[in-house]
Amino acid sequence: MNYPLLQPDNTAELNLRIEKIRKEMSSAAIDALLIGATANAFYLTGGIYNGFAYIPAEGEPRFFFIPPCESKSPLTKSVRKPELIAPMLIEEGYEMPKRLGLELDDLTYSEVERLKKCFPGSETANGSAVMRKARMIKTDAEIKAMEEDGRKQAAVYSRIRHCYQEDMTDIEFQIEIERLLRREGCLGFLRAAGRRMEINMGSLLAGDNADVPSPYDFSMGGAGADPSLPGGASGAIMKPGMTVMVDMNGGFNGYQTDMTRTWSIGTPSDLALRSHECSVAILHDLEKFARPGMEAGELYRRAVALANDAGLSEYFMGHRHKVAFIGHGVGIELNEGPVLMDRSRQPLEENMTLAIEPKFVIPGVGATGIENTYVVTAGGLRNITVLDEGLNEL
Amino acid sequence: MNYPLLQPDNTAELNLRIEKIRKEMSSAAIDALLIGATANAFYLTGGIYNGFAYIPAEGEPRFFFIPPCESKSPLTKSVRKPELIAPMLIEEGYEMPKRLGLELDDLTYSEVERLKKCFPGSETANGSAVMRKARMIKTDAEIKAMEEDGRKQAAVYSRIRHCYQEDMTDIEFQIEIERLLRREGCLGFLRAAGRRMEINMGSLLAGDNADVPSPYDFSMGGAGADPSLPGGASGAIMKPGMTVMVDMNGGFNGYQTDMTRTWSIGTPSDLALRSHECSVAILHDLEKFARPGMEAGELYRRAVALANDAGLSEYFMGHRHKVAFIGHGVGIELNEGPVLMDRSRQPLEENMTLAIEPKFVIPGVGATGIENTYVVTAGGLRNITVLDEGLNEL
Repeated sequence: MNYPLLQPDNTAELNLRIEKIRKEMSSAAIDALLIGATANAFYLTGGIYNGFAYIPAEGEPRFFFIPPCESKSPLTKSVRKPELIAPMLIEEGYEMPKRLGLELDDLTYSEVERLKKCFPGSETANGSAVMRKARMIKTDAEIKAMEEDGRKQAAVYSRIRHCYQEDMTDIEFQIEIERLLRREGCLGFLRAAGRRMEINMGSLLAGDNADVPSPYDFSMGGAGADPSLPGGASGAIMKPGMTVMVDMNGGFNGYQTDMTRTWSIGTPSDLALRSHECSVAILHDLEKFARPGMEAGELYRRAVALANDAGLSEYFMGHRHKVAFIGHGVGIELNEGPVLMDRSRQPLEENMTLAIEPKFVIPGVGATGIENTYVVTAGGLRNITVLDEGLNEL
Repeated sequence: MNYPLLQPDNTAELNLRIEKIRKEMSSAAIDALLIGATANAFYLTGGIYNGFAYIPAEGEPRFFFIPPCESKSPLTKSVRKPELIAPMLIEEGYEMPKRLGLELDDLTYSEVERLKKCFPGSETANGSAVMRKARMIKTDAEIKAMEEDGRKQAAVYSRIRHCYQEDMTDIEFQIEIERLLRREGCLGFLRAAGRRMEINMGSLLAGDNADVPSPYDFSMGGAGADPSLPGGASGAIMKPGMTVMVDMNGGFNGYQTDMTRTWSIGTPSDLALRSHECSVAILHDLEKFARPGMEAGELYRRAVALANDAGLSEYFMGHRHKVAFIGHGVGIELNEGPVLMDRSRQPLEENMTLAIEPKFVIPGVGATGIENTYVVTAGGLRNITVLDEGLNEL
């Protein structure tokens, strides 16, 4: 198996990430972390393992891999089960942690209970929060990976109009886009945290289906093709007068960008066009407005104010059902921190990566607006999903 | 949102399922269950909700839906947060449970801790195990849904050879099969339990890539296209002398069948052909051998003995890395009970649905063998993924 960050030539990158994690461990008074969740495992190794990473506040990390997972790195130990981890650490001279961080928001109750018993003298703290905060600020290597995602996703989006044919259903259109994405190298698997993020390769919303609420935590709804996956395209035929919003998977390398573009079938209505232009204007405003140090909530309030000023608040971030955020962090997982919502006091920092999606739902027409993925820089937001932003005809 | 089991004309089906659950609650001395995990939610409503189902050992169940989830059923209550569930139950005259079953194997530690605080006087028991056992024996309506999956999956598989072109990579081949599945109505989302089941729309293994171990809990490995998703097709060009094993998503309606067929490019080697025929022979043997009341482990031991008798144990269920099961329950999730492994003492019961996959990995050639999904009947196993089982040339 392939663990790029456990290769000798990647020591510097691994150490950068561990430094970030240790800063958050120190704030949370955590003496050691035991990490098993997939996204965190990928953050620490560049690969996926069955087993656990042990990150003490000081000293070398250790990776306990359950076979067949293996690596030649001197940081790796082979282990049959988690119960053997603490004895191996003690044998190597590690002190047992007073407060051990476990991934309380990522692992099941049963698994955490089992891991707690493996470190009987240690108090348990929430390691999920530590990892979430550390991962929020990307390293240069992570941003490079996401720039690659953005380029590939934009390249596919630039060809989407060639997938459209008269009288297609929304699902038929989506299937052709899925194929295009896959042929460009999209892995076709959308990694996201939590159980309210079920989706196949993304969301395509045509016409009034955009106004159907969904139980999931995505920004937009849609009835879906079946009650077992109630989100996105519903199988209806796309017709003139509708908008078609495409918000599909941008994951090509373990990271992902999040990008939306909207097309119209035939000439868009005045309200559709106006709301779409408002979405683009909000993004262009936020690109200049955002600064490191500013609270995430400020971006939310600014966007809401701009939609209000344009007289479009009735349609902003949903119509029958509205969501209370305009964007979110993105990286290994689609739904990372910070969430751009009113009550977020999280300060923006350089090298955060934000997907911002000021969207509208116009009854009788469909969804309008766009989404870009940005890197927070000292001078504002830098777009890494660069492509024409207009409401073009299919 | 669509909740077929909360419609008045489906009361009988909902009651059947609740009866099964109550039987298991009684064995586990659980007074009430609070159910939130997606697959269990779908089992109880035929749809997906944000919220919780409350199933008392006696009396009516209640569905607490967090908006925008809603239904007109008198069993449904609208609730903003789980802390309000117990007060609403008390107001309706429900007694608080002594032992409350929560989904300890499905929900995160943090969520279970929150739910425990919502029922402060109740002891916690493992509701995941109850639901897993109840769901293991399918109702007739569930089997009907799975028969539909099997028909559609087999229909797509019958056309797979038309997707092949000389000099394609394994991924290019898989992309065309994905498109075919999606056009047949496959939802493109593979629901599975646990964090070691990451996959896109399935696994396609050509040549020696089948012998690359993977960290996931699937029966077969493969390097995958990227270290972030290390399973399945790797991007290599398919060549004469290789076998190509296709084990793709059969989910069309919230249920799924699990089905594998294998093709050869050019004439297969003698060993490849012999092992493939052994896989088919094992299945035909088990179809007659299996009986309600028999332990799941017996099927495993019988298959291992047949592979040994054929002199093929070196290649059975993997070569460089072997897995210790030959099949598993399947239904709403891909990995349901029972697991067909040596130590399983779970008795087979009528209307269990089993995916059985006696597979081989032949070095220098690839994977061989097939997989069918079966219903356990009084007279043996009934195949619901019916299609030619030979090792045909592409």
